[in-house]
Amino acid sequence: MKEFDLIQWICSQASASPTVEVGPGDDCAVLRVGGEQLLITVDQVLDGVHFVLSRDGPAAGGRKAVARNLSDIAAMGGEPLAMVASVALPMGFDDAQAKELYDGMRRIGEQHACPLVGGDISAWNRTAERLQISVTVLGLCRGVGPVLRSTARPGDVICVTGALGAAWRTARHLNFTPRLREGRVLARDYAVSAMIDISDGLAADLGHIAAMSGVGAVLDALAVPVHPDATAACQRAVPGGQPVRHGQTQSLSLPIALEMALYDGEDYELLFTLPPEQADRLLADQQKTRAGLPALQGVPDHPFDVPVSRIGVIRSEPGLFLDRAGRLDAIEPRGWEHST
Amino acid sequence: MKEFDLIQWICSQASASPTVEVGPGDDCAVLRVGGEQLLITVDQVLDGVHFVLSRDGPAAGGRKAVARNLSDIAAMGGEPLAMVASVALPMGFDDAQAKELYDGMRRIGEQHACPLVGGDISAWNRTAERLQISVTVLGLCRGVGPVLRSTARPGDVICVTGALGAAWRTARHLNFTPRLREGRVLARDYAVSAMIDISDGLAADLGHIAAMSGVGAVLDALAVPVHPDATAACQRAVPGGQPVRHGQTQSLSLPIALEMALYDGEDYELLFTLPPEQADRLLADQQKTRAGLPALQGVPDHPFDVPVSRIGVIRSEPGLFLDRAGRLDAIEPRGWEHST
Repeated sequence: MKEFDLIQWICSQASASPTVEVGPGDDCAVLRVGGEQLLITVDQVLDGVHFVLSRDGPAAGGRKAVARNLSDIAAMGGEPLAMVASVALPMGFDDAQAKELYDGMRRIGEQHACPLVGGDISAWNRTAERLQISVTVLGLCRGVGPVLRSTARPGDVICVTGALGAAWRTARHLNFTPRLREGRVLARDYAVSAMIDISDGLAADLGHIAAMSGVGAVLDALAVPVHPDATAACQRAVPGGQPVRHGQTQSLSLPIALEMALYDGEDYELLFTLPPEQADRLLADQQKTRAGLPALQGVPDHPFDVPVSRIGVIRSEPGLFLDRAGRLDAIEPRGWEHST
Repeated sequence: MKEFDLIQWICSQASASPTVEVGPGDDCAVLRVGGEQLLITVDQVLDGVHFVLSRDGPAAGGRKAVARNLSDIAAMGGEPLAMVASVALPMGFDDAQAKELYDGMRRIGEQHACPLVGGDISAWNRTAERLQISVTVLGLCRGVGPVLRSTARPGDVICVTGALGAAWRTARHLNFTPRLREGRVLARDYAVSAMIDISDGLAADLGHIAAMSGVGAVLDALAVPVHPDATAACQRAVPGGQPVRHGQTQSLSLPIALEMALYDGEDYELLFTLPPEQADRLLADQQKTRAGLPALQGVPDHPFDVPVSRIGVIRSEPGLFLDRAGRLDAIEPRGWEHST
């Protein structure tokens, strides 16, 4: 069973509740608690699937388990509140390793005002079994957002923070910075209509927005920001060394670095949609900021230093397409699926 | 590293926060959100440690993962609000099994008004690795409680719901009913001073209350309610077949069924302390209820059908003791530690 099919089935089973404003299927669920909109999200990290304990160390795994969740809070435009964690330790995991693991979790939490308030520790009882970390993060909307996946509108511009591709081939998938500040500013000041963090991959996550919003999208091939890590990975691989992993797109003969940007995933950048005039204003504000000029007087975090790229448009016709010099090629909303 | 040592270390690292009213170390953490006291707890279930997938089936594992958490909400006197889950699936886990697992989770949640609002699904990529389920449950105090572990007072009476022992040897550790209604009534109507659910075992969990409250306790050996499952397990084992698992108490020559009640754990009954006059009133109200008389007019859930036993007293001198016909024997605050 593919992860997404199962998730769709689970979402279809969800029952209505007066306290549940948003149920399963978005970056976070949204609950109404005492007049506040409470965000909740859970993500796990498995040794050998999401990181490699023997190579990366326990702190990196703990950090990633927390940071993945913080990225989900960012994608709703929220602020972190607190977190809990469960860990299933492999046999022979010692005191020092356990402390490193928790330090990795706690440090990234403290950087984002997200204290660890509870947990559960168990140990596997056979030597073959590996470390598993599950983290649940709570957040608050505090009057901004939540920004959903399901509310992109035809005519909206598609933008993305940062640059994409090859995160999994480097340490970026471990040491990325959750875009909490950026998500908050986008939700508060730029009328963002839909947002998601890129974990599965640009094409897959844009596919989530499109499917849940009932729209389609066209990406400009030249505008997709390819990360230098992806370019470097391709240069190392030439000639003929780098496998093209995503068979479904080989017929398009895309540059391998662009393939990586479209499909690799684990970038944890924010992918969002907004009306064209808001996109114009955002990009103009960013130019001013980079030129050292104040974008908005008296609003110190406005807009932010992370680059933003305008990469496409939302349209009513379904399907994802890549625009290469005016020619539209269909692309599949697929990425790197850890679980299949 | 033993689980409890690691948890103590983690608790010692927790930093103060204005929104965190109770941090790690109790059945739930307590956060202040929009004027409400929000409870949060996480617990996991590992195949081969907390249940046996091939014997018990996926629904039983899912149910237990949720019910353990609901039991923690009960031990604070709270009401469930919502839950999220992460699952790490073994290779070859099929659609039908995945649906059974989620149905097991969702059904017990729905029985207690606790909808599943989000989740994360990953799959292991080696055949040796087994199912892991982690569930986080949120609850609300709604003006009652939270009842902590750290607030037992010398002179308080120790009581327990239900009967104890051999839960792990039967299906009771899988199909127990979380004592949500009972915890709520105790917190609201009987001035309960401290409460915990029995997961590690009576001696171990009473040890948690004693250590965190800075007190000691004396249990009446004849008053500890031994579950019929424990008695039956002993009868099957005689003569000489049933191993005594808890070596540290063999010198006391306790009846094996009492050993099971003290140390087996996984009973998920509520262990609580309260002033003697409140205990008298509770037990009198229960007698009236069992005799078919209304305990309190107009309060339909008062007190409740589950039996309550008065099993000991809290005192200021540290240490746990077992009173057998006036002779006090020290007992160790230990139980069944899955994780060591």
